[in-house]
Amino acid sequence: MILIKGGVTAPEGFLASGIKAGIKKSGNKDLGLIYSEVPAVAAASFTTNRFAASPVKISKVHLSNKVHQAIIVNSGNANCANGKKGDVNALVMTALAAKALDLKREEVLVASTGIIGRPLPVLKIGDGIPALVKGLSRKNGSIFAETIMTTDTRKKELAVKELIGGATVTIGGACKGVGMIHPDMKLERHATMLAFITTDASISRKMLEEALSESIGDSFNMVSVDGDMSTNDSCFVLANGLAGNKKVASKGADYKRFVGALKYLTSELAKMLADDGEGATKLVEIEVSGAKSVIDAKKIARKISTSNLLKCAIFGMDPNWGRIAAAAGSSGIEFDPDKADIYIGKMKLMSGGASIPFDEAKASKLLSGKKVYVKLDLKSGKASAKAWTCDFSKEYVAINSEYST
Amino acid sequence: MILIKGGVTAPEGFLASGIKAGIKKSGNKDLGLIYSEVPAVAAASFTTNRFAASPVKISKVHLSNKVHQAIIVNSGNANCANGKKGDVNALVMTALAAKALDLKREEVLVASTGIIGRPLPVLKIGDGIPALVKGLSRKNGSIFAETIMTTDTRKKELAVKELIGGATVTIGGACKGVGMIHPDMKLERHATMLAFITTDASISRKMLEEALSESIGDSFNMVSVDGDMSTNDSCFVLANGLAGNKKVASKGADYKRFVGALKYLTSELAKMLADDGEGATKLVEIEVSGAKSVIDAKKIARKISTSNLLKCAIFGMDPNWGRIAAAAGSSGIEFDPDKADIYIGKMKLMSGGASIPFDEAKASKLLSGKKVYVKLDLKSGKASAKAWTCDFSKEYVAINSEYST
Repeated sequence: MILIKGGVTAPEGFLASGIKAGIKKSGNKDLGLIYSEVPAVAAASFTTNRFAASPVKISKVHLSNKVHQAIIVNSGNANCANGKKGDVNALVMTALAAKALDLKREEVLVASTGIIGRPLPVLKIGDGIPALVKGLSRKNGSIFAETIMTTDTRKKELAVKELIGGATVTIGGACKGVGMIHPDMKLERHATMLAFITTDASISRKMLEEALSESIGDSFNMVSVDGDMSTNDSCFVLANGLAGNKKVASKGADYKRFVGALKYLTSELAKMLADDGEGATKLVEIEVSGAKSVIDAKKIARKISTSNLLKCAIFGMDPNWGRIAAAAGSSGIEFDPDKADIYIGKMKLMSGGASIPFDEAKASKLLSGKKVYVKLDLKSGKASAKAWTCDFSKEYVAINSEYST
Repeated sequence: MILIKGGVTAPEGFLASGIKAGIKKSGNKDLGLIYSEVPAVAAASFTTNRFAASPVKISKVHLSNKVHQAIIVNSGNANCANGKKGDVNALVMTALAAKALDLKREEVLVASTGIIGRPLPVLKIGDGIPALVKGLSRKNGSIFAETIMTTDTRKKELAVKELIGGATVTIGGACKGVGMIHPDMKLERHATMLAFITTDASISRKMLEEALSESIGDSFNMVSVDGDMSTNDSCFVLANGLAGNKKVASKGADYKRFVGALKYLTSELAKMLADDGEGATKLVEIEVSGAKSVIDAKKIARKISTSNLLKCAIFGMDPNWGRIAAAAGSSGIEFDPDKADIYIGKMKLMSGGASIPFDEAKASKLLSGKKVYVKLDLKSGKASAKAWTCDFSKEYVAINSEYST
């Protein structure tokens, strides 16, 4: 597997576009489109929030279609808690895009991100669609990645190549965060984390769904910025088969290579989200090892990743490791605290459940970089998991106390 | 029921004390004692954190004794993650206090609050105990309340009188917060929320445990400052019978009056904790009504109370009610979002799951006071619950990025 330059338009046959439709007050780009030149199979995963946004509902319905060819996305408005009108507007977005692209409505998927509870300016979107479609190009992958940004400070895109079934398959992706980030997405043929993945792999829909599900569980669903789950989290993957590989239709060696590449891509994108978390100055990787099961390890790592106290301490470069212990202990998972070790970087700060003397200045230095590594070894089993978050700064509060007004 | 001045020494026969033992770097008071002149029955509730602190473990053991007469408490050190030595030190605290008070070790309960993973300076505590015991007085209830403070900006105490079983019964209480506050305490005869309740009621241990359990579920276990559960949360109640009421030994009218008074006291203390939450500028009351069950209502209210995004919005007086919907929807509780209404104060901002036009300036004004009221009406049942939290300010980050160093 090799990393290459590019994003959603890196795979064969994918075009993208992004324009200013006037949804964002800032006047920045806010309407994006991904298009596959040939019909693709899709898999998607959506928020489990009971207040799921209208685009989530409509995309779920459209996923019952067998093939898909486009995804339309707006930023600046979540189209959530807008009642029936919101549902109709999400449907209208797909219908207008479908018409301009000469597709069926059901072949178009939809996503939104932005403020909740404001009517979607669907007329502005309609007015923008001709220019949006006209702008479709392989060159515009990065423009798409820019278009979906809200409080993100930089665009997030990545692509990889892997040899699968006798051909070189490319997988590209773009995502946005960076607040209300604590996805827990479930696959239903179907985060406001939005992630868009494209691939020219030839793969059956079932295997694509399996691969997405496996990848999300170790990547997007293990990232948290603020512990708040969005109403709009969505992760889409489109596979158009243009790489010409032998179709991946079962869980053999080719599937494994595909999943390996997809997991790498989604994990790297997930880390980019945490790294650019609202107000973040550091990316924090949390590893829990020695657990009895992967589920236990994930739950504990996830709980640690949501500790406001730990995240404030990391912002202040304060090696207050007791907050790691306290968070782990409140995860609801049973473990023996008297066996557990805690590390910051490679420095052990707790051994067998008890504090050990350590050089505070050195420990503080381990928290001073742009990447921080925290580990809890439960020494009770062989399972492990990683979660990612960011530190918690005054800037986070500043950003989120002035968002809607 | 009437509210009276005072705290833990308001009931008959209770004395208290507080001294500077040199545990806190600040040099403030850090060692406290509550003493009943006659043997009392005790009930207590402790953190469910797997990394329970040493004083929690020792108090649990001591609760198997039939009567109790004293509680010794230090602030400035949590005596948590200190291994076997921590357990021994907690035991030594009770033994030294018992000796000085001419009690059995098992008649003394113990609590600690402060930083995790630092050896407890038990020699300083031992040196302080003579002065601590000498200082015992009915006048020193407030000094005790001051002694248990850590990042608290003010002491928290309260007392009530109620007519029960032919006599006037007094219940007094003191508590401290105000960070790592998200208690989930379980009664096992046995939050770093610490709460100490005293009463001169004559009541059986079983009824006292029932009353404490009922009260905590609607008060301390419904308060959250930062969503981080402590390793040291503890709530103690001592009842010494000196009021001379007919003993409360079953769930009759007298029990109901006692529980009513205790619930009032614990709820008011819980609100004081949220009101003084680290960096807080506002107390936030969250009511969830129209739920199918009280458990559902509590889980949703509790989830809303931990939304960093909502709490930042309230700090900024930004009526971004979509964050209430998003938090409720991520609670894991099933409900119909299309029926739900959301209010800030008495102003409805969402009706039947959809946004409605509202005066933003007026809504912002409703968030400008010292007390903010938020309501989610699910309109799907008759159960309701309240949770309390505070807003989330830059000051919270400042306090918690510089705590241990």
